[in-house]
Amino acid sequence: MEQRRGVSNLIVERLYTASDGSTSETGRPGESPYTRGIHPRMYLERSWTMRQFAGFGTPEETNRRFRFLLEQGQTGLSVAFDLPTLMGYDSDHPMSVGEVGKCGVAVSSLADMEALFDEIPLGDVTTSMTITSSAAILWAMYLVVAEKQGAAWSALSGTVQNDILKEFMAQKEYIYPPRESMRLVADSIEFAARNTPRFNPISISGYHIREAGATAAQELAYTLGAGIAYVEWTVARGLAVDEFAPRLSFFFDAHNDFFEEIAKFRAARRIWSKIVGERFGARDPRSLKLRFHAQTAGVTLTAQQPQVNLVRTALQAMAAVIGGTQSLHTNALDEAYALPTAEAALLALRTQQVIASETGVTGTVDPFGGSYYVESLTDRLESICWAEIEKIDAMGGMVAAVERGYPQAQIAKSSYEYQRRVESGDLRIVGVNAHVGESTDPIETLAIDEEAGRRQRANLRDLRASRDAEQVSAALAAVRRTAAGTENLMPAILEAVRAYATLGEICDALRAELGVYAEEAA
Amino acid sequence: MEQRRGVSNLIVERLYTASDGSTSETGRPGESPYTRGIHPRMYLERSWTMRQFAGFGTPEETNRRFRFLLEQGQTGLSVAFDLPTLMGYDSDHPMSVGEVGKCGVAVSSLADMEALFDEIPLGDVTTSMTITSSAAILWAMYLVVAEKQGAAWSALSGTVQNDILKEFMAQKEYIYPPRESMRLVADSIEFAARNTPRFNPISISGYHIREAGATAAQELAYTLGAGIAYVEWTVARGLAVDEFAPRLSFFFDAHNDFFEEIAKFRAARRIWSKIVGERFGARDPRSLKLRFHAQTAGVTLTAQQPQVNLVRTALQAMAAVIGGTQSLHTNALDEAYALPTAEAALLALRTQQVIASETGVTGTVDPFGGSYYVESLTDRLESICWAEIEKIDAMGGMVAAVERGYPQAQIAKSSYEYQRRVESGDLRIVGVNAHVGESTDPIETLAIDEEAGRRQRANLRDLRASRDAEQVSAALAAVRRTAAGTENLMPAILEAVRAYATLGEICDALRAELGVYAEEAA
Repeated sequence: MEQRRGVSNLIVERLYTASDGSTSETGRPGESPYTRGIHPRMYLERSWTMRQFAGFGTPEETNRRFRFLLEQGQTGLSVAFDLPTLMGYDSDHPMSVGEVGKCGVAVSSLADMEALFDEIPLGDVTTSMTITSSAAILWAMYLVVAEKQGAAWSALSGTVQNDILKEFMAQKEYIYPPRESMRLVADSIEFAARNTPRFNPISISGYHIREAGATAAQELAYTLGAGIAYVEWTVARGLAVDEFAPRLSFFFDAHNDFFEEIAKFRAARRIWSKIVGERFGARDPRSLKLRFHAQTAGVTLTAQQPQVNLVRTALQAMAAVIGGTQSLHTNALDEAYALPTAEAALLALRTQQVIASETGVTGTVDPFGGSYYVESLTDRLESICWAEIEKIDAMGGMVAAVERGYPQAQIAKSSYEYQRRVESGDLRIVGVNAHVGESTDPIETLAIDEEAGRRQRANLRDLRASRDAEQVSAALAAVRRTAAGTENLMPAILEAVRAYATLGEICDALRAELGVYAEEAA
Repeated sequence: MEQRRGVSNLIVERLYTASDGSTSETGRPGESPYTRGIHPRMYLERSWTMRQFAGFGTPEETNRRFRFLLEQGQTGLSVAFDLPTLMGYDSDHPMSVGEVGKCGVAVSSLADMEALFDEIPLGDVTTSMTITSSAAILWAMYLVVAEKQGAAWSALSGTVQNDILKEFMAQKEYIYPPRESMRLVADSIEFAARNTPRFNPISISGYHIREAGATAAQELAYTLGAGIAYVEWTVARGLAVDEFAPRLSFFFDAHNDFFEEIAKFRAARRIWSKIVGERFGARDPRSLKLRFHAQTAGVTLTAQQPQVNLVRTALQAMAAVIGGTQSLHTNALDEAYALPTAEAALLALRTQQVIASETGVTGTVDPFGGSYYVESLTDRLESICWAEIEKIDAMGGMVAAVERGYPQAQIAKSSYEYQRRVESGDLRIVGVNAHVGESTDPIETLAIDEEAGRRQRANLRDLRASRDAEQVSAALAAVRRTAAGTENLMPAILEAVRAYATLGEICDALRAELGVYAEEAA
């Protein structure tokens, strides 16, 4: 067999030589088109942020985990919220029963957010919040906690995920219809541009698209395609692209195919710099630089022989680092089927520290620069991505494409193909369809006690009894009024948060005006 | 800080561009100078051999571990012998007390070797034996076991370490003086050339040199320098270089510095092809191809947080595979302080299987070909290595250099420098001088019971009582007589093995004629 196909089903030639690898757009790091990296000195300038995604149970429990990780050398926080929070329901809502604190931390009000960041000075850490449909509300809570801690908004650094298009494409955690959701996103981007100059109001995410089964090229195309839509919607507010583009950030998967992933990160930077520079006419070099967070591929982890996941994660993380990531989450070995125990989370962090400290990978920029194979693969991924972006343009852009189900169908097709290749043995997974051993002893996993739900409900009962009910009603009415109009929603949401209106209450006010979305049956 | 120094203390520039990476000697895989690999299609042609070093306790116990590893998908065997065996003492020798079966398996006679390979057909497996001073004797035992199994010598495939020069340089497990030891090595190479055309009679080893503290360039220079000496000594027997050079094999360390290691493997192939082709005039392309086994760096493993060793080993193994190794041992996570448990050994094997099956690394040859950084580093390591080889040439070659302690002193200097850099924090090791956590729970390690020594002693007592004493005496006398002369020792050793003379007895016969060596105090 002279040729193989990679994880993304692209043909891999047995040999690449000087005649394959074009270096016409390789350039230099820190210079357009940024193929080799966004900083001239990359990790010599500063290391990537080691940002382990964590959150479970009550805000108090997660606060303890955060402080443990910071003590162990983690350099940024990343909050996982539970499903009710992600979907805009309070912990005491009937929809929340059995889900409180399960897949992340439960946050229903400003009081919970205060407990979550107790004794963690928000002016000094950088925080990523993985939340999208409810992003504006949770971000408002974060801003008010900072305000109460006395930290200036201008000093705050971090990211809120907020990429609603990938919810329609892959993750399926949406509340309002696409265009109403886009308005909320544009509101946050606009608000951030004017009020929180160091905070990323969105993390345009290929991760979930990839995890849903997309190829590397599709991950690029639909993520950067979504980026185009966010720029268009924000420019439509009257902002100049250079006013907000420097704070758009990205989030990619670090999957198994080592070289393809490195080429993907290089291609992503090059394509985005062309989109922002050529299509939108940005002039500020900061607008042209694609900054990204990477997470190792959860979908590649196996429940069989969980310690083998440490190996997969280490190699995927190495690809992300060689690819020039700004921030990284390494999955814990038990993350395929449970929330990580403290021990597993610590090992995941140690993985990043070994890469940073021991492998020499931080010493030079873009070590694959010039490589016949990786340069050629970078070009190839770029050209597939452009072809796909052109198709989306022809449909009227990403929002229209999502409304007609185009990327959803393409991802489903790739996912089916991937499964077919696993079943045929063309793609081999150790412990699944290759080298299947006897099952090892089950490892200890983190148990989330039901107590979290009870405590959250009791806290909410006390909160509702003690707050100023009139102030809450007035603030919620203002949210609803603003939602009915076209003004930026952030100020009204901030006022409601300050009055201790709950997440569910604010979200209900928005649902009443923006409507809710249900996907049509295929 | 614009520049860093790598693990080997070489300066690493922040950026390499087209003007740094010369590709004048990059060539094509399967073609001289073999920079990109010895096979045109590398792993598409065949995967590397997954060869986990194993051995402990009695031959029966190790036989069970071997069969377990083969069932789990390991593709080659690698025998670790205990210290008495390595040093030529039987299990019942007073020097052996407390050491029998501790660091490897105890093998004192043909009977033990028969038990070690019970139900493992030697005509079908490939076996590496890590033994040097006693190599000729243990190899003779292996050949006789094959003979008894009915496997033709011409079909046997495997390697015996047998590289005595690295013992004087680093490992210090020698018996006879340097030149007498070299004679035994040349005897085995000559014997192999005439009798076992598929067996490697030597594995010229940089591993121990590197583990003793050498830099990557020194590992290259002293290993390839030793290679020159073995070729010279064998040519002096009247053999043409092409009669034996195709069966010289090498063994390198896969250390932490990811790119440096990859460049090292590329440089090793290029330098060796020039040595054999230009210095010794070899014409057979097989003579020019440096084939090597790699082992991840035991010295980098930490007793602190042993599971982090899985991460280190995975990344080191990836470098070895990208560097084009023919065979690989991945250290088990507990290998820093114990013999691996079956579970740890299995995880180490799974590490190789994940790399082979999931990362796409086997799909294309030499993915770093053309990389500005790696090509430049390959050139740099080559030129440092040549300078060192010239110094050794000026001393009269590697045997003379070893006798005057030159490589020993250079390695000690580098080792001191490495330690100094660790102590100053210039080199960071997670768990040692960076991110030192609370100690984790000790992991379960393999206990070698004292029973192994008792059983070995009882077996030897029975053996000595039951064998033909006269035949043994005659065979030992013949070994001694041959040692006093200049003929090849292998036939006499084989006869003694067939008569069930023990390792210690044969070795004593050789000691009596060849003498024993003690290093002078520095």
